[in-house]
Amino acid sequence: MGGRVNSIGIIGFGRFGKVLANILQKGFSIKAYDPKQSSPFSGVEFVSLDELLKEKTIFVAVPIRHFESVISDISSRISDGTTIIDVCSVKKYPVEMMGKSLPENVGIIATHPMFGPDSFMSNNRLKMMMNNTRDSHNQFKFWKGFFMDQGIQILEMTPDEHDRMAAQTQGVTHFLGRMLKEFGIKKTSIDTQGFRDLLDLVDQTCNDTWELYTDLQLYNPYTKDIIENLKKSTDTLENRLKELQS
Amino acid sequence: MGGRVNSIGIIGFGRFGKVLANILQKGFSIKAYDPKQSSPFSGVEFVSLDELLKEKTIFVAVPIRHFESVISDISSRISDGTTIIDVCSVKKYPVEMMGKSLPENVGIIATHPMFGPDSFMSNNRLKMMMNNTRDSHNQFKFWKGFFMDQGIQILEMTPDEHDRMAAQTQGVTHFLGRMLKEFGIKKTSIDTQGFRDLLDLVDQTCNDTWELYTDLQLYNPYTKDIIENLKKSTDTLENRLKELQS
Repeated sequence: MGGRVNSIGIIGFGRFGKVLANILQKGFSIKAYDPKQSSPFSGVEFVSLDELLKEKTIFVAVPIRHFESVISDISSRISDGTTIIDVCSVKKYPVEMMGKSLPENVGIIATHPMFGPDSFMSNNRLKMMMNNTRDSHNQFKFWKGFFMDQGIQILEMTPDEHDRMAAQTQGVTHFLGRMLKEFGIKKTSIDTQGFRDLLDLVDQTCNDTWELYTDLQLYNPYTKDIIENLKKSTDTLENRLKELQS
Repeated sequence: MGGRVNSIGIIGFGRFGKVLANILQKGFSIKAYDPKQSSPFSGVEFVSLDELLKEKTIFVAVPIRHFESVISDISSRISDGTTIIDVCSVKKYPVEMMGKSLPENVGIIATHPMFGPDSFMSNNRLKMMMNNTRDSHNQFKFWKGFFMDQGIQILEMTPDEHDRMAAQTQGVTHFLGRMLKEFGIKKTSIDTQGFRDLLDLVDQTCNDTWELYTDLQLYNPYTKDIIENLKKSTDTLENRLKELQS
């Protein structure tokens, strides 16, 4: 049945919580809870956690490393009939966590909005992964439609499919961006287009926090192997060059 | 005094020789020599090496690995008053080679056109490094002006400055492009802009031949250190992640 809800809650109001509020303001009044929040945000009412837990739809937008403690904190205080929507950039870990901790009659929708404050501002087409994890209250179809109406492309897949692919895309992109920053890459007078793309990559990936970067690498079970494979490819290439020199 | 010449020669008519012919056709009749050349090319007359060596201006556009043997082959047969212009993608090695082998009264202009067939076709601004190496016949200013008239941005610098910078730009770009190809990077349904830029990087760098790639890495004296530094940065980043896991 599901249907329209008029207000929603957001737990965690950092970099991504604000992007989310901008999108959700197009249909809802918003209550938010963040222990660190101080400055007001247009159209958002900051409330206590107990007050927020009265909402029927609650987005959890906290750093992945704090996800477990937040979920276990709310699991005993949450009412039947609530739906929890997470926005973590990895999916197997939070979905397993929610399935285990949240009471049977609390619905679960897993999402990964594949954009941040920077890409949200640009005019690029936004993408969002969604998984109908445990849709106890028939809310999935409604939310999928809402995000599509905002021009966001929805990709449905399992948490496992997501993490395997994201290890390739996010994992490689962010690892190389951080590696090139560590290397000390910088502009020269003879830059080609390909080199300028690498400079852009560093800007884009290093605009995210170091915490988000390490969360992506540590909480995606497939990222470690990907990084190993990148290193193996580096060694293979280097060895081929060394053979030519000898 | 120098001044306008009406015909020029090109030794080596591979991927880059053809790009060069397209540019030089806007001012000159072109004679070319390439032992492998078979198919005709509009506006270019293929001649024997002896016939070609009668030209007063000769571009050498052979693979870097064949540069030494070509230069030593022509050095005893070349006339006084000739100017040799090389287009190698590294600069210290060919400049030292030409300075040592070519007779005193043969002029030397070193260039690195920083574009290939792909970037030449696009509408991007083209760049070219030039070095007035041993301009016995006052040809440098003329050629600099000619290329600028074609809309090419000219960057004057020493061979050493070039190779230091190119180890950063070309060296890093091509190494990462080849490494990602070796890794087996491929499109997914959840690609972000940063990831698509990496896919483009692989296309761009791997369109060049493996021979050009290895020449860039092996004949630039600074590239080896750059690759070492890239690997060190990879290890540093990986170790920071490992510390977080333990």
